[in-house]
Amino acid sequence: MNSFTQWLTQAASDRDTAGLTRRLVVHKSRNLIDLAGNDYLGLRRDERVLSASIAAAEEFGAGAGASRLVTGTWRVHEELERAIASLTGAATALAFSTGYHANLGVLTALADRDTLIISDAHNHASIVDAARLARGTVQVVPHKDVQAVAHALAGRTQPRALVVVESIFSVLGDQAPLLELLDLVERHDALLMVDEAHAIGVIGDRGEGMLGSLGMADHERVVATTSLSKSLAAQGGAFFGSHIVREHLVNTARPFIYDTGLAPASAGAAIGALEVLAQEPDLVKRVQIAADRLATACEVAHPDGAVLSVPMASPHAALAAVDVCAAHGIRIGCFRPPSTPDGISRLRLTAHANLSETDLDFCAAALREVVRRSRHD
Amino acid sequence: MNSFTQWLTQAASDRDTAGLTRRLVVHKSRNLIDLAGNDYLGLRRDERVLSASIAAAEEFGAGAGASRLVTGTWRVHEELERAIASLTGAATALAFSTGYHANLGVLTALADRDTLIISDAHNHASIVDAARLARGTVQVVPHKDVQAVAHALAGRTQPRALVVVESIFSVLGDQAPLLELLDLVERHDALLMVDEAHAIGVIGDRGEGMLGSLGMADHERVVATTSLSKSLAAQGGAFFGSHIVREHLVNTARPFIYDTGLAPASAGAAIGALEVLAQEPDLVKRVQIAADRLATACEVAHPDGAVLSVPMASPHAALAAVDVCAAHGIRIGCFRPPSTPDGISRLRLTAHANLSETDLDFCAAALREVVRRSRHD
Repeated sequence: MNSFTQWLTQAASDRDTAGLTRRLVVHKSRNLIDLAGNDYLGLRRDERVLSASIAAAEEFGAGAGASRLVTGTWRVHEELERAIASLTGAATALAFSTGYHANLGVLTALADRDTLIISDAHNHASIVDAARLARGTVQVVPHKDVQAVAHALAGRTQPRALVVVESIFSVLGDQAPLLELLDLVERHDALLMVDEAHAIGVIGDRGEGMLGSLGMADHERVVATTSLSKSLAAQGGAFFGSHIVREHLVNTARPFIYDTGLAPASAGAAIGALEVLAQEPDLVKRVQIAADRLATACEVAHPDGAVLSVPMASPHAALAAVDVCAAHGIRIGCFRPPSTPDGISRLRLTAHANLSETDLDFCAAALREVVRRSRHD
Repeated sequence: MNSFTQWLTQAASDRDTAGLTRRLVVHKSRNLIDLAGNDYLGLRRDERVLSASIAAAEEFGAGAGASRLVTGTWRVHEELERAIASLTGAATALAFSTGYHANLGVLTALADRDTLIISDAHNHASIVDAARLARGTVQVVPHKDVQAVAHALAGRTQPRALVVVESIFSVLGDQAPLLELLDLVERHDALLMVDEAHAIGVIGDRGEGMLGSLGMADHERVVATTSLSKSLAAQGGAFFGSHIVREHLVNTARPFIYDTGLAPASAGAAIGALEVLAQEPDLVKRVQIAADRLATACEVAHPDGAVLSVPMASPHAALAAVDVCAAHGIRIGCFRPPSTPDGISRLRLTAHANLSETDLDFCAAALREVVRRSRHD
């Protein structure tokens, strides 16, 4: 057996022993209520979104055919970028193939060797990887610890600094203290980078995200990214912010430059979702109502966005809860150590605008049961 | 002006002064012949590919809705992975959202701190970034220098080593010495990672790629990646290779785990393109014939794949050639220093199976003119 096969076999065996082997399961949506996915507005199968997606593929092709700077920029990309800027209140936007690409592209382009990257401990894997790939120095600060950010900024030796957070954190679903962080980056001549992946479509009267709702999206010290695969029901990611940053990305962001343009079908779907959202801003409220119902059932506080985090008594209790819900036809997620930052096992649930009253009643009953059962374990 | 704005303004000004500013131009395909994009089989607008794409979106939704390990694996992903394995001759495959993600995922998952990564100097940006992001030690070797690879392998201090190349290199279009490299990794207990992005659909009787055509795709010392956005006319990327590596990726490749699943429309389009390729293997020959015609016109050797690299007398001559071709309605690419590894400015042309005889005559005439003009500059 060669050394790689040996190493891989050992790693697989270690995973099995620890009960941590992950397996792909084909999702069959027919008889399931999905409280694990990120389609917050429930638009993945919306006829208007599908029509916009299909029309874009028919007009521009199945794939973009080339990188954006070669011959892979199509009118649908421009339309998408205008629509994202319009929703969020930013001056401009730039589409990427995935949210991961957007974070890699923005952070590597903006943080050179002369930049201190101050990164929240709960940031998404794509931000962690982006910070590692960037040439700057990375300092991880405790979750939402404004004092630690202030301390890092005050003590920096680099000419530039960039503070990076998620506006709604993907694991716990809590929100970043954006106003306080903006104040800090102003006082310390730094930049604030905000990943709005879990806020677009969920936060603000029109789903404009947290930056937009706080009037921060066009601030010269703010750069933002988002995903197109959550509320916007498609695939992809985007930067939104100022023109000068966009031009810098087009010229220097390697995950943008050396990647085929976003598929027209995905760009079209995201445009379609943005149009539905503009026509039906009520969808945002419906997500919040659904989140409230699930939170009450789980006896946790109303979440800042659509992501609910429910602490459980043990890893075993968390897994048992997933199984009980699955038996009811409800898919929920869970995080167990070592995936949780603080060692506490948690259920992760997501609220969706398209859950009916019946669905919500049904889910609430099942969740009440698993949460109470966890208490008595 | 804040320090970031100052820095960005200076960078923009430096680019302008050097004449190196890149701008996005919306592609209008109507009156253009595209010899710059990577749609080698000309399937982006094929009705069968579009139908497969649309059917997948209608059945599974516009986006996958979640990461693959949560609720974002759909039957279309399994079908795609089976079809890629079937074409290439590998045991199994795993789809990623982009080719970039595939290279990041495979290299970071396989190269830990105990691994020496030996990377060809001409490797694509996504491999360069993947090697930087991986925890292993990176050694860049001169382009196609088998002796340098042998030397690096013989002198390594790490328990494991991984040699990484593109089978058809994306810039110069030349091929890697895969048989010699396989011999080396066997003798030195290492692994060979091959990016087949520019070989799938172009190399081999059925477009199975270079590994498949050399009978190497199921070798225990070979792991491979490909793009789905070139010959396969969609968006995305894939790993293909052994089951044990696939399982390792599912469990440890962060750009796979923490990314929304590939959009059903893109997975469906790639499946459609694979079906067309299976029905019409003649498409592969048509790319090669087109490449021959263009090579003859440019007075360069027949390329190994579909990418032609044409040395020009100067950066100025290369730009002038692009402009003359554009005036004829032909889009070609060019590389100038500092983007070229050896300081020589080059035109980059790509051959396509759907170029008609008339198109080829027309392109050949224009290319003869610009290449001759370059000689007389």
